Amino acid sequence: MKKRISDSVIRRLPRYFRYLTELTRCGETRISSAMLSEKMNVTASQVRQDFNCFGGFGQQGYGYSVPALKQEIASILGADMGNRAIIVGMGHLGTALMKNMNFAKYGVSVAGVFDISPQVVGTTVNGMQVRSMDEIEAFCSQEKPNLAILTLSRDSTQTVAAQLQQYGIRGFLNFASVELSLDGAYVENVHFGDGLMMLCYALKQEQQGGDGSDAKNSGTK
Amino acid sequence: MKKRISDSVIRRLPRYFRYLTELTRCGETRISSAMLSEKMNVTASQVRQDFNCFGGFGQQGYGYSVPALKQEIASILGADMGNRAIIVGMGHLGTALMKNMNFAKYGVSVAGVFDISPQVVGTTVNGMQVRSMDEIEAFCSQEKPNLAILTLSRDSTQTVAAQLQQYGIRGFLNFASVELSLDGAYVENVHFGDGLMMLCYALKQEQQGGDGSDAKNSGTK
Repeated sequence: MKKRISDSVIRRLPRYFRYLTELTRCGETRISSAMLSEKMNVTASQVRQDFNCFGGFGQQGYGYSVPALKQEIASILGADMGNRAIIVGMGHLGTALMKNMNFAKYGVSVAGVFDISPQVVGTTVNGMQVRSMDEIEAFCSQEKPNLAILTLSRDSTQTVAAQLQQYGIRGFLNFASVELSLDGAYVENVHFGDGLMMLCYALKQEQQGGDGSDAKNSGTK
Repeated sequence: MKKRISDSVIRRLPRYFRYLTELTRCGETRISSAMLSEKMNVTASQVRQDFNCFGGFGQQGYGYSVPALKQEIASILGADMGNRAIIVGMGHLGTALMKNMNFAKYGVSVAGVFDISPQVVGTTVNGMQVRSMDEIEAFCSQEKPNLAILTLSRDSTQTVAAQLQQYGIRGFLNFASVELSLDGAYVENVHFGDGLMMLCYALKQEQQGGDGSDAKNSGTK
């Protein structure tokens, strides 16, 4: 039985996961907490404390096993659940996500992609045919996706999301510039503008003679 | 003279800014710290403390002036600096950003957009002609943009960013799934996958009988 992991630790896990993925790509098999802490910009004791929350994996003097740690973090983050996503809105952003996002890395498969435009419905994006919104209820009932990635307009996002929740979708990744909010479902709102604002802040600090270093090489997470 | 504002307060400002923008859109002119705190999911005393960092604006019993607060936050975040951005990479993601992102809201103007593909160079996106990467050095030297939004491949991002830094770009918003890192420049890495992982975590918690509530209606910020 694992103990409950705090929200702040959980929020750091995707970053660890990204870095461990990078290490795997480079063929690294072991990493010290000192190295991890340097890369992650947290203290080494923070790293050890974070990893102790879910069982350690570290060995004094040997560091952490990259594959074991990566697999454990992936498992905590639910990458072993066989989650199934639909993408709703296959304009430029939906197409970019379909073409570039490595869903398999997160253990997510794309079950279907949808659009409202007759010009887009029936076309193929990355080997998958775009379906009409008219089919979405039947599709959800049959294929039982549990995640929706929404690249819709401000105006339609809330309505479509509420419908999809009724069709059984439990988690929503929303890209519209509106704060989606749903009772009883999980929502992550992606705000491109936040990163831009942090950069503008840093540039202003710099121009005013500060060093703006808070934002240097930070991440939007 | 303003006192130094802590990093954690600064990181909350884009969220306040988004909410105040929403209130402005709805025609609201005043907001209480209680209302703000409910919406922002921070305590009312945290809201008051945050806003006291940059001069208050609150009046006992009257709440905050929405336009004054919005303008002050915009100013702290550098939206009054006339920053100029270039977008490098006009594939689907670059096109989506160009078409949907309200740069003016952040006080940023798009000075130019660039791509390497001969099929894309010369086409027009949202009224702006896509330029060739061959022109980018001369363009930067003449137009002096200070921000770059990069929607490039993993492999080319670091190299292109390092070049652009030499051409005078100071801030980078990176969308490639690689952790861009530049000495002496400001970088914000946008990771779509992080939000997806937080959703998968919440769904796993839910399926295991927890309520996964940490992720409910959260934001990727």
